[in-house]
Amino acid sequence: MSFITEDFLLETDEAKRLFHDHAAHLPIIDYHSHLSPKELATDHNFENISEAWLRYDHYKWRAMRTMGIQEQYITGDAPDVEKFQKWAEIAPYTIRNPLYHWTQLELKRYFEIDSLLSKNNADTIYKTTTEQLQSSSHSALGLLAMMNVDVVCTTDDPTDNLEHHRKLRAMGTKVQMHPTFRPDKVYAIDNPEEYRNYLEKLGNSSGKSINTYADLLDALEDRISFFHDNGCRIADHGLEFLSFFESSPHDVEALFSTILEGRIPSPDEVRYFQYHTLSHLCHMYHQKGWVQQFHLGALRNTNKQMYHKLGPDAGFDSIGDFPQAQGLAKFLGSLDGSNQLAKTILYNLNPAWNEVFATMAGNFNSEGVKGKIQFGSGWWYNDQLNGMERQLNTLSNMGLLSCFVGMLTDSRSLLSFPRHEYFRRLLCNMLGTEIKKGLLPYDLDHIGSIVKDICYFNAKNYFDL
Amino acid sequence: MSFITEDFLLETDEAKRLFHDHAAHLPIIDYHSHLSPKELATDHNFENISEAWLRYDHYKWRAMRTMGIQEQYITGDAPDVEKFQKWAEIAPYTIRNPLYHWTQLELKRYFEIDSLLSKNNADTIYKTTTEQLQSSSHSALGLLAMMNVDVVCTTDDPTDNLEHHRKLRAMGTKVQMHPTFRPDKVYAIDNPEEYRNYLEKLGNSSGKSINTYADLLDALEDRISFFHDNGCRIADHGLEFLSFFESSPHDVEALFSTILEGRIPSPDEVRYFQYHTLSHLCHMYHQKGWVQQFHLGALRNTNKQMYHKLGPDAGFDSIGDFPQAQGLAKFLGSLDGSNQLAKTILYNLNPAWNEVFATMAGNFNSEGVKGKIQFGSGWWYNDQLNGMERQLNTLSNMGLLSCFVGMLTDSRSLLSFPRHEYFRRLLCNMLGTEIKKGLLPYDLDHIGSIVKDICYFNAKNYFDL
Amino acid sequence: MSFITEDFLLETDEAKRLFHDHAAHLPIIDYHSHLSPKELATDHNFENISEAWLRYDHYKWRAMRTMGIQEQYITGDAPDVEKFQKWAEIAPYTIRNPLYHWTQLELKRYFEIDSLLSKNNADTIYKTTTEQLQSSSHSALGLLAMMNVDVVCTTDDPTDNLEHHRKLRAMGTKVQMHPTFRPDKVYAIDNPEEYRNYLEKLGNSSGKSINTYADLLDALEDRISFFHDNGCRIADHGLEFLSFFESSPHDVEALFSTILEGRIPSPDEVRYFQYHTLSHLCHMYHQKGWVQQFHLGALRNTNKQMYHKLGPDAGFDSIGDFPQAQGLAKFLGSLDGSNQLAKTILYNLNPAWNEVFATMAGNFNSEGVKGKIQFGSGWWYNDQLNGMERQLNTLSNMGLLSCFVGMLTDSRSLLSFPRHEYFRRLLCNMLGTEIKKGLLPYDLDHIGSIVKDICYFNAKNYFDL
Repeated sequence: MSFITEDFLLETDEAKRLFHDHAAHLPIIDYHSHLSPKELATDHNFENISEAWLRYDHYKWRAMRTMGIQEQYITGDAPDVEKFQKWAEIAPYTIRNPLYHWTQLELKRYFEIDSLLSKNNADTIYKTTTEQLQSSSHSALGLLAMMNVDVVCTTDDPTDNLEHHRKLRAMGTKVQMHPTFRPDKVYAIDNPEEYRNYLEKLGNSSGKSINTYADLLDALEDRISFFHDNGCRIADHGLEFLSFFESSPHDVEALFSTILEGRIPSPDEVRYFQYHTLSHLCHMYHQKGWVQQFHLGALRNTNKQMYHKLGPDAGFDSIGDFPQAQGLAKFLGSLDGSNQLAKTILYNLNPAWNEVFATMAGNFNSEGVKGKIQFGSGWWYNDQLNGMERQLNTLSNMGLLSCFVGMLTDSRSLLSFPRHEYFRRLLCNMLGTEIKKGLLPYDLDHIGSIVKDICYFNAKNYFDL
Repeated sequence: MSFITEDFLLETDEAKRLFHDHAAHLPIIDYHSHLSPKELATDHNFENISEAWLRYDHYKWRAMRTMGIQEQYITGDAPDVEKFQKWAEIAPYTIRNPLYHWTQLELKRYFEIDSLLSKNNADTIYKTTTEQLQSSSHSALGLLAMMNVDVVCTTDDPTDNLEHHRKLRAMGTKVQMHPTFRPDKVYAIDNPEEYRNYLEKLGNSSGKSINTYADLLDALEDRISFFHDNGCRIADHGLEFLSFFESSPHDVEALFSTILEGRIPSPDEVRYFQYHTLSHLCHMYHQKGWVQQFHLGALRNTNKQMYHKLGPDAGFDSIGDFPQAQGLAKFLGSLDGSNQLAKTILYNLNPAWNEVFATMAGNFNSEGVKGKIQFGSGWWYNDQLNGMERQLNTLSNMGLLSCFVGMLTDSRSLLSFPRHEYFRRLLCNMLGTEIKKGLLPYDLDHIGSIVKDICYFNAKNYFDL
Repeated sequence: MSFITEDFLLETDEAKRLFHDHAAHLPIIDYHSHLSPKELATDHNFENISEAWLRYDHYKWRAMRTMGIQEQYITGDAPDVEKFQKWAEIAPYTIRNPLYHWTQLELKRYFEIDSLLSKNNADTIYKTTTEQLQSSSHSALGLLAMMNVDVVCTTDDPTDNLEHHRKLRAMGTKVQMHPTFRPDKVYAIDNPEEYRNYLEKLGNSSGKSINTYADLLDALEDRISFFHDNGCRIADHGLEFLSFFESSPHDVEALFSTILEGRIPSPDEVRYFQYHTLSHLCHMYHQKGWVQQFHLGALRNTNKQMYHKLGPDAGFDSIGDFPQAQGLAKFLGSLDGSNQLAKTILYNLNPAWNEVFATMAGNFNSEGVKGKIQFGSGWWYNDQLNGMERQLNTLSNMGLLSCFVGMLTDSRSLLSFPRHEYFRRLLCNMLGTEIKKGLLPYDLDHIGSIVKDICYFNAKNYFDL
């Protein structure tokens, strides 16, 4: 008997009908991911399941470290097959963590494997999956086709030449790949040396050297146009919180010039520079008609020792408790005040702040746009049943669920697409359960049409892709 | 088949028995509302359902804005019937928001309408309800009688002459209307010009001009006596958070005098003045034996553009993330330390702070008073199933549910009284479900008596009305 | 019919099998409590149920105060029997508070009483329990044996001579009692006079006078060795939050010397001294291979009036809203950076911060240790069904439930051990419910082995007792 049954997560008949009749067959718009454009453009075949599953997945790394597995088998130089064995060994002990469901769902959907991963079947599963991964059905594009993916949006630095995006477009594939403009480094002035190197790269990409702040803004306009011409319609930002300054405590041109000279700025200068530059960027996004995304609330790179060994995004980030409300209100308010607030998605990492985010979104909507300001889907640590339910409940109670643009993978892995199915199942289960209880009307067509909107059509209409 | 069935929200037999046998027939004490005293004293008949439902309801406004409806149909000059059509059109898309249940419950209870509001039946419903609203059964007092309302408390500025309260009392109606003293403007010194105008008004109402801070305190004592004589037993305050100052950083008389001269005070001065004045007011309330209410945690008027168009309370407020614990502890502690802490209800807007509030309430109770310090009912954005359940659960786990003074509408609308029924149903459902599970004893008389206390008798005993 | 049935809290067959087959019969390791070492070493028999239940239980005190009971019957000089009557009178009104379940569970397990405590049976129950408490089956050691307790860890000041621990060890009892090193007073310099008295006591206990900060560190090393030699393997700290200082703003030797001279330090100096000393202590714990515990987030002694009457821990503490994430990250990070981070348990009082804590724990795990950094069990106000479920859910979703070291009583009362049963029941119910729903595999042996780990074996392996 399979663990992933046809009605996995679906507890009532109403839930089953909503899922199977309304949600299951819709294509996927994955409007935020960290997929490798190159893997798609080269239609990459993974060497083995370890490359696909373990090489970049800091969720699994953290779980392995919690179990006390040696780093050698996590990010070290142990052979792929041994890394997989270690992962398989601990997989049964990840119950109740999303990794458990993801693992079984991915084995089932991509490889038709029903058995529960453990050390006992690690070798068999390693062989079967690795074999399948060599076939064209399991190439990068094959994996996406299998999941009925229409659109993926990658996350790209402003200096990126987008060659893979252009290549894939030229190939005329079913799946469309759009870049996302993610300029975090553009205002990361706290390390002047790294920053100067970055400016050089940015100058090169835009074809002129950056010597002044005005040059920087020119270069950004230039890159935004370039991204726009290559299909980009979305920007993204990773920040602890949004700041706002009532007045201008620093002369940005002067500040910029002293940073170029290598002076390390004060924390307050860093924050002001970030705010000031972000503000300019947001005006540019608005002008282009883009959607802007803010990922707020992460406390990153807490383990300095491991950071120096492995760099960022290695599984040593956690959830912050930064005050968010006032900065958000004032930052969004100032853009809205000059009618330059683009469509915006606010992602919140600390679920204790969900209500702050959900109610903030309601303050800045606009005529003629359905759900202009979005409280984004359960993100990162919240990307699990309970976290997504909390986001959906708060959004429902304090905003309108029906306007929600829905799920995204936010993933580096081509095997993460069943997360859309997982989301759709839990959404249908939530609604179906409430229909059965009499909390929602017994009108499967109407509720089903809202399901369809959340799973596909809202995103299709919201993003100009 | 009706959506609002007899057993709406009631999932077990125990829940049904608790509700129907113990809760359903109790009268209503609505100890906090924003009803218009004039509408009651003049026994107003609404022109149409739009006047009753849409003219002041910023909850509905926000939902309409989220759907992208033009402001013209929200607060603008579109005809009432068109505004209603727009609302009806989006009503089906508010599922899971409390607006959905409220809408259907209000149609059912006041107008015996079972059909689900949508654009298809908007015209019919507009006509039927408007017709009914003209009859004496649906006048202001009629609507209250229909809902078995014993007491309503309005929310009134200290300068109010309470003519409508006096008039209604003279009429000898079944429903009693009491004023609530809400002196937020008394310490709003951040705009000296508006403040001076307000002081003039306050001086006029108390019959002497206010030239010093001592005059202000005299005027407040005077107004409190006047309110007391006109049936007021409750004060109310809307604040971001409660402050406390260990020492006196400013001379209040001097500060007051410079404000009268038009100097704009510093944020710290504003906060100190607010604290200092509030502290005086709380002493006065204690002396009168009043209940004091604090509504804490809102971040108001975030959208300045709309604020300048529409003023406050127009649907642009959200939930703040202010630290609350230390200010609350010290403010309440200082009143308690001099034995001048009145009965107090603490309302919390940010549900992440529920545990802070629930445990704070337990620190300052008093001999001979049942539940002296109350953690107030789910407020505003929390006034929905999930928000009320969270408040009830936290109160239960960290305090005593049995001492709770229960529900209030906090509403501007005469059609909001089914919210009491809604609360009673969810309370009975919560308790009935736990009886069935064996978490509570199968003693419907005992649990039923606690239900009665929470729905009516605790409030009756707590407030000296 | 009994309220505490065999299947209390167990809603599915799977839950029942998990509990009865896997959890029920395991011994108890109570690795954190506030039991009196003397009561154990003297095998104390309580005079009556009031001594056992009411003399030190500030949970019950708070409930009684909320009901308006006079302090005389709570901490005053009313006779024990009357205090019990008052408690019995309000017990039926504590439904949904953990006190209700605890009360019935303790009556059932220790005294075989099934009836629901109320004023009607107060006299009978007082007599029966008091009678039973005189027998050897109900002595301190008898009560522990009844509950199958293997290990208890008490909480002890560094100056303690541990005579009772040594005495009990010499007696060769089944139950082992270990001390826990709790040095909160070692850095409580805000009251220089009390602090000097404490230093004198500490100097006496370590056999040399403390005149310099270096002397203090020597004395602490000495006491830690002494505790270690007497079976201590755990340290514990109660703090509002963990601080970190990037640089050293104060010369600790100089600061220490001015405090000895009676100067009251600034808040910043207090905080730095605390941080600096805590940091030294943590290095010492690491060297000894101890586990360190941090209890974070309480706002204590809010009611000064009652504090002056009754001292600390009298039921006037509440939940704080201190920012925690950055201090935690930097404090733990600095220990980890020099490879001196001991095994650590982080207890969080404010459940809104659960996610911050759960994800923080995942940043500092180590090779070869299962669950080195623990997000501790629902503590104090969170020690109830909902609070424990939230902790377990967050731990599961953002870490690994399977590595959890499980439950502790944290109690002063020898009658609190059924809290372990209560925890085990809710854990099995949670897992059994999810097995039934298909969220967990139907493999009762595997899930049962994880239950066993959480209830007993993880703690056994984690603590070197």
